Amino acid sequence: MAELTRLVAKPLTREAFSPYGNVIETDGADSFAINNGTTERFHALAQAESVDGEVILSIFRGQPFSMPLTITMMERHPLGSQAFVPMQNRPWIVVVAPDAGGAPGKPNAFIAQGDQGVQYSRNVWHHPLISLEEVSDFLVMDRAGAGDNLEECNLNAPYEVHLS
Amino acid sequence: MAELTRLVAKPLTREAFSPYGNVIETDGADSFAINNGTTERFHALAQAESVDGEVILSIFRGQPFSMPLTITMMERHPLGSQAFVPMQNRPWIVVVAPDAGGAPGKPNAFIAQGDQGVQYSRNVWHHPLISLEEVSDFLVMDRAGAGDNLEECNLNAPYEVHLS
Repeated sequence: MAELTRLVAKPLTREAFSPYGNVIETDGADSFAINNGTTERFHALAQAESVDGEVILSIFRGQPFSMPLTITMMERHPLGSQAFVPMQNRPWIVVVAPDAGGAPGKPNAFIAQGDQGVQYSRNVWHHPLISLEEVSDFLVMDRAGAGDNLEECNLNAPYEVHLS
Repeated sequence: MAELTRLVAKPLTREAFSPYGNVIETDGADSFAINNGTTERFHALAQAESVDGEVILSIFRGQPFSMPLTITMMERHPLGSQAFVPMQNRPWIVVVAPDAGGAPGKPNAFIAQGDQGVQYSRNVWHHPLISLEEVSDFLVMDRAGAGDNLEECNLNAPYEVHLS
């Protein structure tokens, strides 16, 4: 069996995540007042990309994973971005990887706080949703339309994600 | 001074809200399993409309309103839909109105639970965000782009929204 490589989840920050997409959070984001001062708008934290398709909202209800977590596959969406935002303010795990010749390179694991969402840019390798502790709902903005928007890749060697 | 008309907020349901747009919630929605059975996808609860523009995610941080609430204006977006989903699972108030010759007709008020979002269809009259009790964050999907996407209208006579 292939060797298991240990990954430690790092805190999710805009800077660390920037090669992969956007962090959707208010901390450190610009805002302005609207609605006669009753609302503060943190504007355009992510912009959808949808090739020849529509942009939709769905809710993903994720079963919790136990840590450490062994990951053996990743996926990407060739035709659109995909954003995940927690609806119940619970921490969760984000695993992404650079592309290495059409397959995922070495992954990066992040721990996202309950008020942090992410948008994976189009064609960015990522692991499917990883909830922690409880069944958790996420609002998802992604693409709908014709064409094959899912590419899955089994990893040559598995990784094990740890919280510390 | 014009007479104050009393409105009682009704529970938010898909059926009651259908003339105005979509309710974004899992209850009563179709779903299917994805991610090797670890995630349940409640698919396409809302679809963005954006005329000659982009679709973006923002966070709106709303100051809480005291009830009963007097409303004296409404707004609509001629170039796109606008979706609001609570990020902290707190109830909130939705006020919408049919169009009556280019101005809002008699409004309908709804109380939305913390796991219920809405999408206002393009050109639907609605009141700006109404949070309750605490400062609350909402994920917002709407349109960005050139052109004037905001129409505001002062009401001829005010309404007073009550929770019961």
